[in-house]
Amino acid sequence: MTAAEACPEPERVCVVGLGLIGGSIVRALRSKGFRGTIDAVVADDDEARQARELRLVDEPFTDIAEAVAKATLVVVAVPIGSMASVFASMADALPADAVVTDTGSTKLSVIREAQTHFGDRIGRFVPGHPISGTERSGLDAGFAELFERRRVILTPTPETDRDALSRVVALWRAVGAQVSEMDGAHHDEVLAATSHLPHLLAYTLVDTLARMAERTEIFEYAAGGFADFTRIASSSPSLWGDIVTANHDAILPVLDRYIGDLEAVRAAIADGDRDTLTTTFTRAKTARDGFAAGKA
Amino acid sequence: MTAAEACPEPERVCVVGLGLIGGSIVRALRSKGFRGTIDAVVADDDEARQARELRLVDEPFTDIAEAVAKATLVVVAVPIGSMASVFASMADALPADAVVTDTGSTKLSVIREAQTHFGDRIGRFVPGHPISGTERSGLDAGFAELFERRRVILTPTPETDRDALSRVVALWRAVGAQVSEMDGAHHDEVLAATSHLPHLLAYTLVDTLARMAERTEIFEYAAGGFADFTRIASSSPSLWGDIVTANHDAILPVLDRYIGDLEAVRAAIADGDRDTLTTTFTRAKTARDGFAAGKA
Repeated sequence: MTAAEACPEPERVCVVGLGLIGGSIVRALRSKGFRGTIDAVVADDDEARQARELRLVDEPFTDIAEAVAKATLVVVAVPIGSMASVFASMADALPADAVVTDTGSTKLSVIREAQTHFGDRIGRFVPGHPISGTERSGLDAGFAELFERRRVILTPTPETDRDALSRVVALWRAVGAQVSEMDGAHHDEVLAATSHLPHLLAYTLVDTLARMAERTEIFEYAAGGFADFTRIASSSPSLWGDIVTANHDAILPVLDRYIGDLEAVRAAIADGDRDTLTTTFTRAKTARDGFAAGKA
Repeated sequence: MTAAEACPEPERVCVVGLGLIGGSIVRALRSKGFRGTIDAVVADDDEARQARELRLVDEPFTDIAEAVAKATLVVVAVPIGSMASVFASMADALPADAVVTDTGSTKLSVIREAQTHFGDRIGRFVPGHPISGTERSGLDAGFAELFERRRVILTPTPETDRDALSRVVALWRAVGAQVSEMDGAHHDEVLAATSHLPHLLAYTLVDTLARMAERTEIFEYAAGGFADFTRIASSSPSLWGDIVTANHDAILPVLDRYIGDLEAVRAAIADGDRDTLTTTFTRAKTARDGFAAGKA
């Protein structure tokens, strides 16, 4: 850590959106003794009242332009589908030196929107993604420990200012996260495989079963493994409709690969080819046990 | 509960196989103050020594015929692929009145094996399945609370003696389980949907990702949702090779239905049909939230 990271000038942070991610950022900054100011943009007066009652922020705003006008660092923590309109609402009001970052689950689509709306100030925009969701959302969902030892991926472009990047790195380290950098396109491919594809599989499974005649009985006899396997199907449908639509270029190849592999498993079952099945299952168990050991 | 169930004659139970299920049955019987005798068939002398050291059973046997010779109630808790050979080994040594039950994850295949090996004593066989696995296996995996408030499905046939059935019901109630009855074919269809299909999807996903060039990085950036979603891919490959092979008649139709639904989701992504995606995700979330509420 550089001296500048250890003792940064206190930022005036403005978090746009107090859902799971935004709400956890402000809670984590508070609990870590952040010395700067924390403002936020909330959905409406009701959320503003709640944010005040919970003492989540110094000042809650319902107007984006007003909120960002004095900010030094803006964190846009809204669903992927709302990024463009939020960028449009803040672009003219942003102080010239302000740094903007986001927390969206896809990066190329967000970078395109930022280029459109921030124009020649695109160097002050640092695309980012904390790998730390849960299936919950809303003002009550956030908690201060969400980012502890979790990965945050930043995907700077060749235009990104190094100063802007280091201030966003400092923010994430301040809330306990481990920061990595990678190319935006590569981020989208990795997340398509580890996050977007599993969500699609879980949503589709629950929907397949829910449309079967025996649906009540099926869910009645589902056990612990099913609860874990389908937990992500309780995630926000609107949020995930946005993510899947935004990242379809990266999702389709890995989804096609998966469907092909599932067809091969189907053929092995139909042919009574137990060797292929146990070879596949064994390879998977080895990889999954290795993954679990790495996370332990 | 009838008086006979409340105060049954002490059984001499013999549990064949001390893996997760068998090991949990003997631990649960002990912890509930079961008044009868608990014997077990273990894999080898080493397991016999461990079973003695852990005081899991009154007497561990390595010879099946010897073990069942004095039993009044035999619980066959071995993998599906070993049922036939265990039935064959015990058939001639079983006391005439002894009741036999099993804990296999598929039922029609086990019933067929039982008919083959028990012949005209098939009435004393009660097919059963506790819906309470975890991804773990082995002598150390079992725990006394595994069956608490969990479902056990019994699938008696028209030949099953009512006395044999009620004694197996009493055994499961004694370890804390809730007992249901259904037709064996129906059981296999329900479990294909809620258990066998999810295992296939999880194994295939982890295998698909593990065979990608970026496998190390992919697992490095996988988050909490991925860990839950893939937990069942750490299950025993050999056990699941047996289950899937034994229940292929029930698995193939629901797997085909799933692949069709996944193809429809793929088409919606390719066409940018966000409405179809959010409709599907919303239906799934509603069903999954309902399931979770029912289990809470």
